Amino acid sequence: MIAQTPAPPYYAVIFTSLRTEVKEEYANTADRMVELAAEQPGFLGVESVREELGITVSYWESLEAIKSWKNNAEHKVAQQMGLNKWYSRYKTRICLVERDYGV
Amino acid sequence: MIAQTPAPPYYAVIFTSLRTEVKEEYANTADRMVELAAEQPGFLGVESVREELGITVSYWESLEAIKSWKNNAEHKVAQQMGLNKWYSRYKTRICLVERDYGV
Repeated sequence: MIAQTPAPPYYAVIFTSLRTEVKEEYANTADRMVELAAEQPGFLGVESVREELGITVSYWESLEAIKSWKNNAEHKVAQQMGLNKWYSRYKTRICLVERDYGV
Repeated sequence: MIAQTPAPPYYAVIFTSLRTEVKEEYANTADRMVELAAEQPGFLGVESVREELGITVSYWESLEAIKSWKNNAEHKVAQQMGLNKWYSRYKTRICLVERDYGV
């Protein structure tokens, strides 16, 4: 779904990734991370799509909220699994959303 | 593919959309817009994925480059077609990429 974010400014984390062939624990963990992210202070929403390339954009109130989420213990375990097993390449981009519009 | 962007700061345009049932001219125009965007001054790259939800992120050197692309004549025709025919909902977010990392 399209995230219902407040009026800018707010932050976006664009996580772009290419998967390995390893399926073990991936889908469960990906779902769990969305659920866990949504419980974090400052979380505003998430949008996620995967074909060969995956793009997940999460939205946050502040850089502090993003940093706290990055350092969440359960998330750190998942990040390490991602590096070791699930992703052949990834890029994370931390962005200030300055303006938005749509219908 | 994951876009090969330079060191920040640079800009990202996150375009998130839900499609209508209308297939007419959509795929050709979407491909053409990626091709045309890549010819614009200040274009840095693009990442695009669609399931039910579509996320396209394009990367740009400056707000001026984004504005010029938004006002490109052929792109304006496509934007109008998008509003009238192809998208039931969309959101465009203009972002300053402050930091990035990855492997």
